[in-house]
Amino acid sequence: MVDIATRVHNHNWKIDPIVRSLIDTDFYKLLMCQSIFRNKPETTVTFSLINRSTRVRLADLIDEGELREHLDHARGLSLSRGESTWLRGNTFYGKRQMFRSDFMEWFEGLRLPAYHLEKHDGQYELTFEGQWPEVMLWEIPALTILMELRSRAVLKGMGKFELQVLYARAMTRVWEKIERLRRIDGLKIADFGTRRRHGFLWQDWCVQALQAGLGQAFIGTSNCRIAMRRDIEAIGTNAHELPMVYAALADSDAELAQAPYKVLADWHEEHDGNLRIILPDTYGTEGFLRNAPDWLSTWTGIRIDSGDPAQGAETAIRWWRDHGEDPRDKLVIFSDGLDVDKIEELHQQFAGRVKVSFGWGTMLTNDFRGLAGDRLAPFSLVCKAIRANGRPTVKLSDNPNKAMGPADQVARYKRVFGVGDQQAQEVQV
Amino acid sequence: MVDIATRVHNHNWKIDPIVRSLIDTDFYKLLMCQSIFRNKPETTVTFSLINRSTRVRLADLIDEGELREHLDHARGLSLSRGESTWLRGNTFYGKRQMFRSDFMEWFEGLRLPAYHLEKHDGQYELTFEGQWPEVMLWEIPALTILMELRSRAVLKGMGKFELQVLYARAMTRVWEKIERLRRIDGLKIADFGTRRRHGFLWQDWCVQALQAGLGQAFIGTSNCRIAMRRDIEAIGTNAHELPMVYAALADSDAELAQAPYKVLADWHEEHDGNLRIILPDTYGTEGFLRNAPDWLSTWTGIRIDSGDPAQGAETAIRWWRDHGEDPRDKLVIFSDGLDVDKIEELHQQFAGRVKVSFGWGTMLTNDFRGLAGDRLAPFSLVCKAIRANGRPTVKLSDNPNKAMGPADQVARYKRVFGVGDQQAQEVQV
Repeated sequence: MVDIATRVHNHNWKIDPIVRSLIDTDFYKLLMCQSIFRNKPETTVTFSLINRSTRVRLADLIDEGELREHLDHARGLSLSRGESTWLRGNTFYGKRQMFRSDFMEWFEGLRLPAYHLEKHDGQYELTFEGQWPEVMLWEIPALTILMELRSRAVLKGMGKFELQVLYARAMTRVWEKIERLRRIDGLKIADFGTRRRHGFLWQDWCVQALQAGLGQAFIGTSNCRIAMRRDIEAIGTNAHELPMVYAALADSDAELAQAPYKVLADWHEEHDGNLRIILPDTYGTEGFLRNAPDWLSTWTGIRIDSGDPAQGAETAIRWWRDHGEDPRDKLVIFSDGLDVDKIEELHQQFAGRVKVSFGWGTMLTNDFRGLAGDRLAPFSLVCKAIRANGRPTVKLSDNPNKAMGPADQVARYKRVFGVGDQQAQEVQV
Repeated sequence: MVDIATRVHNHNWKIDPIVRSLIDTDFYKLLMCQSIFRNKPETTVTFSLINRSTRVRLADLIDEGELREHLDHARGLSLSRGESTWLRGNTFYGKRQMFRSDFMEWFEGLRLPAYHLEKHDGQYELTFEGQWPEVMLWEIPALTILMELRSRAVLKGMGKFELQVLYARAMTRVWEKIERLRRIDGLKIADFGTRRRHGFLWQDWCVQALQAGLGQAFIGTSNCRIAMRRDIEAIGTNAHELPMVYAALADSDAELAQAPYKVLADWHEEHDGNLRIILPDTYGTEGFLRNAPDWLSTWTGIRIDSGDPAQGAETAIRWWRDHGEDPRDKLVIFSDGLDVDKIEELHQQFAGRVKVSFGWGTMLTNDFRGLAGDRLAPFSLVCKAIRANGRPTVKLSDNPNKAMGPADQVARYKRVFGVGDQQAQEVQV
């Protein structure tokens, strides 16, 4: 039977919205938002979309009118009653009422602020300027809208049958990865693939595949909407935007040098347990750990998000040992450029020496390489805080290809944080 | 939106019928049925299901009650008005009114006759005894019911997700085959996969894949129901049951020797053009062609269904040359144990020398090898005429592993048809 009502309903869609919920975002954005809402609510920050893969000419692929419709649709969203209930009532990492009442009241009233959109040289320049707790919530919707509009643009020319085979192939590929992962004894892995996903429904499918295929080894998703929908754990802690903005706000080199630790001191007050995860690479992992205060070594673990991951983990292990901590009690979360080979290799090298866990991103939710030619291959799109209270932000990272900021400021940060030569690594996605 | 009406309708299914139409059968069964209806209507024939793959213990896998329900359901079917219209009004091989009025009137009144079912040593013994034009129509429904009940039995234990991945893999496999076939210049290929299909919906999907992927190179399907549904050509001519029954009815060795030619003389009267296809292997291709009447060499082509296919085609080419026919005007249809490698090889060897065409069967519609372990791999199930007017039938074939009949009769047929040593070939499916 044809379901006429559904069909007529679909006919009447103005658009098929890509973002349908304010919590279709990474969990750590909400954790950070709450922290910012408490500690730095008045800061003016500019977020900007940056396509590091200039070969993908987004403005040629994606119609500007369509892009605006999706951005405008996202601006119309507010937290639903069920979403608010889930955030207020859920247990995250074993803790109830992770989100404070004052934050939830503010969040319930929130709408995404205005955006600024221009075309330039085949790319969109999309920026968001305003109060930090508000504009920072644009990061994930902006990325997912651009990513999915690009997918839709490529898929538009394909027949019903080609589409079916395309997804059959993509499903087979994901499932074969999962079958390999299933053989890793003691694996712990989460979906971190929201920001660069092929599309919402596809990420949702991938999460269900992980659930069905990995059982207990699958520990959750960074995506709150999917965590809610599939009744699984929402996973995440904090990201580079915190030290980047804190650093930009520093009024002296001495304050700058302390900024990354100030971030974690604020975080330490708010969170314990699994949320106390160090992200050390914003201005170089080596220097960060060398100069870190002793109390940081008592934190639960570390997230390795750039540079050579094995080297990063070894550095952390040495640092814990030097501080009298047993690395076997510590959590190392690998989250940069992972696919099955690398996961197998890192697990092999570190299981038993530390508690290992993986945040699997783009190669989970957007591995369409070689399908539809290579027109669906993932690419490197980011949305970053580039200015805070009128000052440029800087990121050095453990990979100079991921560095950001004006050259003079990059030089100053390198001096202040004692960053020497770095090994460049190709940025895939 | 949930389509409640559909869901409730599905709840109320007593069974989900495997065979839903009397024309969910091979086109050549109907052509042969019409011929038998005219020439040998009163012959009493017994058809019997034979599982040549004894490792697949069908009676352990398939519930007898369920099997009976499906067989009974098939007995309740009659030709629908639309099906009758399609058979009466359609153009087959460019010819209108392929089916005569007297045959159509009889067919419109037909119900499948009684069946006889027993279990023995892990297998079902399923036989059909009655008037030849009626019982012969059981062959395909009996096979497809058993094949699909076996698939359903294996799939029963699988979750929604495993099923999705299973079919994604099977689809990917079929599509990759089609992509290889697409590269063969001048290919002509048809679906002959009804009898040993994984399931009806799967065959229907495979046919659509061939349509979408091969365009003009895909020349049709043997399945009438799917040909009607997808508005494509129904393909087929005649099969071994004709010479087998004619031979069993022969009253002397002299009559026996002539029986295969008598079949084709009857056929010659009824059909021309693309329907004049010789199936020479029932009692050995070599002898058949050696002793064939001259008029047979004017027929359109030959179907190679057992033995080494290249050798069979070379034999036919020599025979045509010896009779002053140009092989380049002749059609060679390969239909035995084909998969892409073999199709590529045969096309390479014979394109340009003859008109080449392929009837692709089990490895199109049931290549689930290695999926669900190997519990879905195709197996060799046949439904053959084993007795006619009380006498056993015999088949020699060009492959002794496909021979059938009592030993003394096999010896007699070998003597009468001058069949010497034969090369055994493994029967895959």
